[in-house]
This record gives sequence, structure tokens and C-alpha cells, in this order.
Amino acid sequence: MTELKNDRFLRALMRQPVDRTPVWMMRQAGRYLPEYRATRAKAGDFLSLCKNTPLACEVTLQPLERYPLDAAILFSDILTIPDALGLGLYFETGEGPKFKRTVRSAADVDALPGIKADVDLDYVMNAVSTIRRELNGRVPLIGFSGSPWTLATYMVEGGSSKDFREAKKLMYTQPEVMHRLLDHLADSVTDYLNSQIRAGAQAVQIFDTWGGTLSSWAYEAFSLAYMRKIVKGLIREHDGRHVPVILFTKNGGQWLEAMAETGADGLGLDWTTDIGKARARVGDRVTLQGNMDPAMLYAPPERIRAEVADILARFGEGTGHIFNLGHGITPDVDPAHAGAFIEAVVELSPAYHKQ
Amino acid sequence: MTELKNDRFLRALMRQPVDRTPVWMMRQAGRYLPEYRATRAKAGDFLSLCKNTPLACEVTLQPLERYPLDAAILFSDILTIPDALGLGLYFETGEGPKFKRTVRSAADVDALPGIKADVDLDYVMNAVSTIRRELNGRVPLIGFSGSPWTLATYMVEGGSSKDFREAKKLMYTQPEVMHRLLDHLADSVTDYLNSQIRAGAQAVQIFDTWGGTLSSWAYEAFSLAYMRKIVKGLIREHDGRHVPVILFTKNGGQWLEAMAETGADGLGLDWTTDIGKARARVGDRVTLQGNMDPAMLYAPPERIRAEVADILARFGEGTGHIFNLGHGITPDVDPAHAGAFIEAVVELSPAYHKQ
Repeated sequence: MTELKNDRFLRALMRQPVDRTPVWMMRQAGRYLPEYRATRAKAGDFLSLCKNTPLACEVTLQPLERYPLDAAILFSDILTIPDALGLGLYFETGEGPKFKRTVRSAADVDALPGIKADVDLDYVMNAVSTIRRELNGRVPLIGFSGSPWTLATYMVEGGSSKDFREAKKLMYTQPEVMHRLLDHLADSVTDYLNSQIRAGAQAVQIFDTWGGTLSSWAYEAFSLAYMRKIVKGLIREHDGRHVPVILFTKNGGQWLEAMAETGADGLGLDWTTDIGKARARVGDRVTLQGNMDPAMLYAPPERIRAEVADILARFGEGTGHIFNLGHGITPDVDPAHAGAFIEAVVELSPAYHKQ
Repeated sequence: MTELKNDRFLRALMRQPVDRTPVWMMRQAGRYLPEYRATRAKAGDFLSLCKNTPLACEVTLQPLERYPLDAAILFSDILTIPDALGLGLYFETGEGPKFKRTVRSAADVDALPGIKADVDLDYVMNAVSTIRRELNGRVPLIGFSGSPWTLATYMVEGGSSKDFREAKKLMYTQPEVMHRLLDHLADSVTDYLNSQIRAGAQAVQIFDTWGGTLSSWAYEAFSLAYMRKIVKGLIREHDGRHVPVILFTKNGGQWLEAMAETGADGLGLDWTTDIGKARARVGDRVTLQGNMDPAMLYAPPERIRAEVADILARFGEGTGHIFNLGHGITPDVDPAHAGAFIEAVVELSPAYHKQ
């Protein structure tokens, strides 16, 4: 493999010294970029874009052409696994993801096939290996998956939800059925991420978008336990390099200590948690990734810069921080504002990495 | 005034000994009750029901006829103040509250009238005094309001929002305009709650439904600061009794210490926070109100009972706990399950109040 020219992101995940704080943005290949919208128009719908290897590669690389980002992230969706399990993923304009079939009973769970990601999600692996080749060692490539709990909520609800009542009904009334579903998903996610690693992903992130809707004990039992299982099953060394894993539970700020005990290398932080207090809680056991409110990108560049300065100061000196937004960048952000954000990290962070 | 026959709720808010843990449910007068739906059908739409004094009183008392609750809560809406400010509140079926006009500029804020709650929200005060009379000392009556930040989000967005982008745009780009709006709202809420107290409310709760969408510093500056101002301006003694105030920030579990410093008597807890850990953090400075996941009411009665037992054990012995759900009861809950929840608190909690 080509030598990696910029390994700041990977070094920060191992708490090794860096010259400045690495930065990338969740959903950095996305609708806020006119060049993304142009490529998307060629592909058709969102899922067709994910499945079109050259175009998925193209949009993955677009933000790197504009900004000095320290990582690329596979362009794909968190719901590829349920789709491969036969639930029929589709997107309705303005309504988010939907499934043609739901999973709400023991029989539904038992009927789910096993999947072999290399075969059943070969389009993802093709995208990973193509992007990795096209990156040519410029920055590392991050692979990803939804967490078992997050995938399960969509599979049970049949799409997005405001209060997750069907998923919670199943969890509270037939916990053993929910556990069987989550266990199946944990095995699938492990296989899926390992395939991505073999195909070329140099780090992986697990998106637990809806773990924060659980009570603390239920988060431990129904979300964190399965992420822990995944972390233990992941390939952690590949091609002579450590392959770091990042857990991101949105609204999970209350549970960082438990998340840090899973063996993950990094934790994603949304913007509701003070990153300085988070660092004090988890020490140097894990790297923290975050955590500017994505809505700050609506503010003028000088306000964005002040916020970057504030977050850098809160985290303080030394390695162990990857700058990011606290959630994905939104479609109506001005690309120049995203640029101001990244530029501020590049310019202001070296002061925190002097020794 | 008639003597209060059941003062468990008020005693718990002052950390005085009680014979058992008091219990009520957010949105206890609501659509899950067939008798509520019948009264609502007579009134017409939701806002007409709020403004119809005899019917608002009727639905407030309905849950007390079914369950041994320890408090009644005024039947009203959190958005009455913006409505009185002339924004034109209305409800679209299945879409939540909407406003005909929004507030998005300095000129919009400056154009807002001052309100005198006794006059401009007289229908609320009529409801409070009528309910108080009809309660006849059975249990205390809780008055309430939305928090300034929460009201502001609806006023800026023109209704509910997924990501609060307009409210956050205003907050980040013209913070002084947002502060002026919040200050105006804090004064209005103070006047509104004091009017409710004079009309007969024996405790008040401030619902900060959307404070949890803010970063920690923004929560302090744009939400908590204004709730603190309100707490300081409230009538705290009326008719020879202390009038307690409860702050409830949904998803505010990370900020309990700061909330406890406001002078509030109680803090509402959603279900994401372990109530035992919360108690360890705030000590006996405040009472904790909560915190069962409302979705647990979909489970069978014996599962609900086990969850109540678990939450009681987590809180532990002694006063300072008011049992509640972590958010409002949902419309499709079986009233028998709500009954099982309340019965479990009544039966299981005396063991924690032996001395």
C-alpha cells in the first residue's frame, strides 16, 4: 500500500504527539457542496449514489479538494446492513429513510438471514477499495456502520421516529427478542466493519445516533453492550498499522466513562458536553472527537473562529483531540463557512501542540 | 383557603419527611384518557379547551378521579405567552403547534408588546382559581410555563423544529437580539407564574423542553440564566406557605449542579439520567422529580412495577424524591398501565420512608 502522507488523525487516536489538532467533518461529503449536488444529480437517488462506485468515490474526495481535511470518510449510509438483510431501504423526499418491511416479533428476527458483507455489501467494499486507491495516501480513510441499537430502531419502526415507541415496546415487553435482534446485528456489523478494514478502511466509526434516547441502564444493556462486543471482534491491526475505532453516541455525554471502558480508541462528542470536562472524566484513556454545534456554521466566519478557539482552549494542551462538529454538517451551510471552520482549526491549534 | 389534605408533594419539595414518595405524571390530563377525549370533543380544538374554564377544570381533575395522584397540574399549553404576545398560536393536526408570525429580527423583538398576565392571560388565571376551588384541598395545584429559551425557539422557528436552525442562527449571529427576546420572555414568564400563584397555584414548574439542544456554555447563557432570573422574581411565600419551583430541562442531565444553584426547589429529570447518581451530585440541595421512561408504560404491569422498584432503590431512602415520568405520558398508553405505575409507587415507596 502507498505510504500515508498525513497520519495526524491516526496519531491523535493513539494519543501520539501531533503538530496540530486533526480535523474532519461528519457528513463532509454532502449536500452543502454544489459539486456534491451535481454528482448526486447524475446518480439519481441517494442510494444509487452509494451503490455507484466511481461516483461514491468522487463525492468522498470532493471535500478534500476544497479543504485541508485530515481524514476522508466512506460515502455510504448507516442503513446498508438492514437493507442487505432484506428490509428494502428507500428514501422518501423530505421524510428520511424508510423500510418496506419491519422487524417486530420473534418470528421476524428468526427470519433474518445471516449476511456475508464481502458478498452482500460488495458495493460498499468496492467503494472502500476504490476510494483508498484514489486517496493515494493523502489522508486516512474512515469506514463506518450504524450501531446495533440504532439499526434496530429503524428496523422496528420502519424508518425514523420521534419517540421510538415501537422499538421501546419491543425492548420493554420482549427484551429477549430485542436482544436476539441486537446480537444478530452486532455480528453483522462486526463482519461489515472487518470487511471494510480488509478493503482499506484505516479507522472505523460506529454511529450510535439513537443510543441517547435510552435510560442509563438500557443504554448499557441494549446499546453499549453490543458496541463492546463489536469492538472486541474487530480487526485491530492491519497492514502493520493499528486500526482505531471511534464510538459516537449522540446525547451520550452522561456515559463517557462506560464508553471509554469498551476498548474503543476514540469517543465522538456532540456539542452538549463541555469537552474540557469530558477530558477530565476520561483522562488519556481515549481520544475525544468533536464538538462544535453544527449550527455554529450559520454564524459569520469570525464567530466560528472564536468558537474553535474556545473549544481548543477547553480541551487544552496535548494530543488526544480530533476536531469535528458535534453532528453532521447541514445542507444549507455556506461552504465558505465550513472552510472558515477548518482554517481556524489549522491556524489556531498548533499552539496546543508545542512540545 | 381550604386546608390542604394531602401535602406530600409540597413536603417532598422542601425535603421534609413523607410517608411515601409522592407521584404525579406530566401530561396526566391527556389523550390517553377516554374521558379526556370526550371532553375535548365537546370543546373543539386544543386551544379552545385551554380557554374554556369549566372544561379545562374538568380535564385537570379527571386523572385524580382514576388514580391516587399527589398533585394536579393546570391544563394549559406552554405556548400561551407567545400567543398573548400576538404571534397567533394554532395547532395543525399531526404537526404540533404553529405560529402565524415569527420573531427573527431586532425589529420583531422590539415590536413585541409587554404583557400583563392577569389581563392578557385571564383565561389561564380563571382556570387556576376554578381548579383550585374545585380541588377543595384534595392535592396541591401546580402552575407552569415554558422556559424563555423554549418559548423563543417556537417563536423564532414558527413552530416545532428538528434542529432549531433559525433559533440558533439568531443566537449565534445576533446574540444581543436573542438576549433581548429572552429577557422580555423572562419578565413575561415571571409575571405569568406570579399571577398563577396569586390565583391559587401552590407550586410552579418551568418546562425547558429544548434547553438540552444547546452546548453547555450556551445552555448557561441562553437558557439557565433566564430561568435563574425567573426564580429570583417569583413569589416564594403565599397564603402562609412556601411556593416551590421546579426546573425541568429535558436532556439537561449534564447540568444538574448548575440548575441546583438557581434557587429552585426541585429539578425534573428525564429518564436518561440515573436518579441515584443525580442525587449523589446534587445532594439534599434540591428535590429530584422523575424519572421513568414514558415508553415503559407500554410494558405489562409487572414490568412497570419492577421498573418503579428499581428507580426507588436507585434514589434510596428518605425524602427529596417526587416520582414522575421522564416526560409526558403518550396518547396511546393504556390507562390501566398508568394505574399500575401509580399503584406501584404507592405500594412500594413507603419502605423508603420508615423513619
